[in-house]
Amino acid sequence: MSPPVVVDTIQELREQLKARAGTGRVGLVPTMGALHAGHERLLDRAAAGCSIVAVSIFVNPLQFDREADLRQYPRTLEADVATCARHGVDLVFAPAPREMYPREQACTIEVGRLADHLCGRFRPGHFQGVATVVMKLLQIVRPDAAYFGEKDAQQLAIVRRLAADFNVPVEIVGVPTVREPDGLALSSRNVHLRGAERALAPALYAALLEARRLIEAGVIEAAVIRQAAESRIPVDDLLRLEYLEVVEPDEMQPVAQVRGTVLVAGALWVGATRLIDNILCRPLEGKV
Amino acid sequence: MSPPVVVDTIQELREQLKARAGTGRVGLVPTMGALHAGHERLLDRAAAGCSIVAVSIFVNPLQFDREADLRQYPRTLEADVATCARHGVDLVFAPAPREMYPREQACTIEVGRLADHLCGRFRPGHFQGVATVVMKLLQIVRPDAAYFGEKDAQQLAIVRRLAADFNVPVEIVGVPTVREPDGLALSSRNVHLRGAERALAPALYAALLEARRLIEAGVIEAAVIRQAAESRIPVDDLLRLEYLEVVEPDEMQPVAQVRGTVLVAGALWVGATRLIDNILCRPLEGKV
Repeated sequence: MSPPVVVDTIQELREQLKARAGTGRVGLVPTMGALHAGHERLLDRAAAGCSIVAVSIFVNPLQFDREADLRQYPRTLEADVATCARHGVDLVFAPAPREMYPREQACTIEVGRLADHLCGRFRPGHFQGVATVVMKLLQIVRPDAAYFGEKDAQQLAIVRRLAADFNVPVEIVGVPTVREPDGLALSSRNVHLRGAERALAPALYAALLEARRLIEAGVIEAAVIRQAAESRIPVDDLLRLEYLEVVEPDEMQPVAQVRGTVLVAGALWVGATRLIDNILCRPLEGKV
Repeated sequence: MSPPVVVDTIQELREQLKARAGTGRVGLVPTMGALHAGHERLLDRAAAGCSIVAVSIFVNPLQFDREADLRQYPRTLEADVATCARHGVDLVFAPAPREMYPREQACTIEVGRLADHLCGRFRPGHFQGVATVVMKLLQIVRPDAAYFGEKDAQQLAIVRRLAADFNVPVEIVGVPTVREPDGLALSSRNVHLRGAERALAPALYAALLEARRLIEAGVIEAAVIRQAAESRIPVDDLLRLEYLEVVEPDEMQPVAQVRGTVLVAGALWVGATRLIDNILCRPLEGKV
């Protein structure tokens, strides 16, 4: 397997894609780098569905609401390219911010109500920044399919809606979350977790599992489900639950009662690190 | 010359485009119908530059800030198709609102500061609606070039910025305004002008010409230029000047002094009809 071609300009990327035009489906895996096994699942899924796989590695300033988070976000390009090589990636696009935003981005994507809750409520402008850079990447690469992790469920829902609302001819593929043995969802931010923090971090997934257990047992009141789930977060100075919500899975609107498939999603601060996770829950047949 | 194929669904349009793929450049002329000689200039320009010309005819509800304006906007599909046939158009895409907006458009384009002045200031949401539908049409048709009239100068500037900001691989072509012998810019809304109104309507262009005369004579103070131009609008109960501004031509920001090429743009209410027009003005060499 030959190593990927690494380019940092839009023009080079388009030339590389043009040289491969007509040889099969093009798959895009948009990432911010610091690739982990969750990303590897995306790469494998793209390779299975497409003959040309392009990976973008770009820490998008537009989607960071905290300057410190942007500054500290792990950047590991060399290792990322090696990971891409192991998974049969053809093209790595790793532009500098100036290449993506040569001047002020005057036109941006407004995502509306899908960003009103969950992370969108706590990270003003975040999903506008995500949707804007995703739209740019979709125009630059023009892939047949684009791959996103289900760990970022609200992001995935917004990207799906973005593509549908703007009639972008691309298949948006969601790829299941990869977890550590203790349940912690893989995230590039996990590298920031120190000893005691790492031990506490799986509490978020434990809370989500408790929510699913209740839903599958026939509990329908979201308030009850939330309270039971939140009780699984230990009382600890290192932990602060930002939100834990029960929402319908397309438009990410909170529900008062579970009347069909719902998404239970949460954000937990562990020390100075913010972790998110979610779980799709289907009530048992005959219980709704 | 064979008549155009007329379709009203996105799927049919894409099939028609796919059947013609690889046979040459695709040009898109987005319109709201009620085609006049100004549009015909767009069609001819597209036909000159492209081997496949698609015309969209869609009165876009998203860009109307006044319900009455949307309701009264002239709709003349049969005549429009005949006009397209005379100008060698290959495809006419005339979707119903439900085809373009099958559900609430959650994601929209925010256009930022380019919409802060001129029409954007007086028509809240208008350019967001324009940019949104243009982005949709660019994704549906994926043209190599798209053609817009210079009469709508702010719209043209926003569409150029939209394509650049989102890296849409399309050439945006501006086509000069077509005028009646007395200077009135052609517009689909001119059909609403009654006798006395029609006689007064060229006042807007006369005002713009006066602004250009001053600028070419070396006047640089925008306030002076505006005042002189506005004095060309007769005092009449039928006329109300909404704005007349001197702006730089890329980001549509007002200038206090003319230090290079500027756009002078105005909106004039003539009875119940709102007309817009503009003129690009270059100061004489050595005068700046």
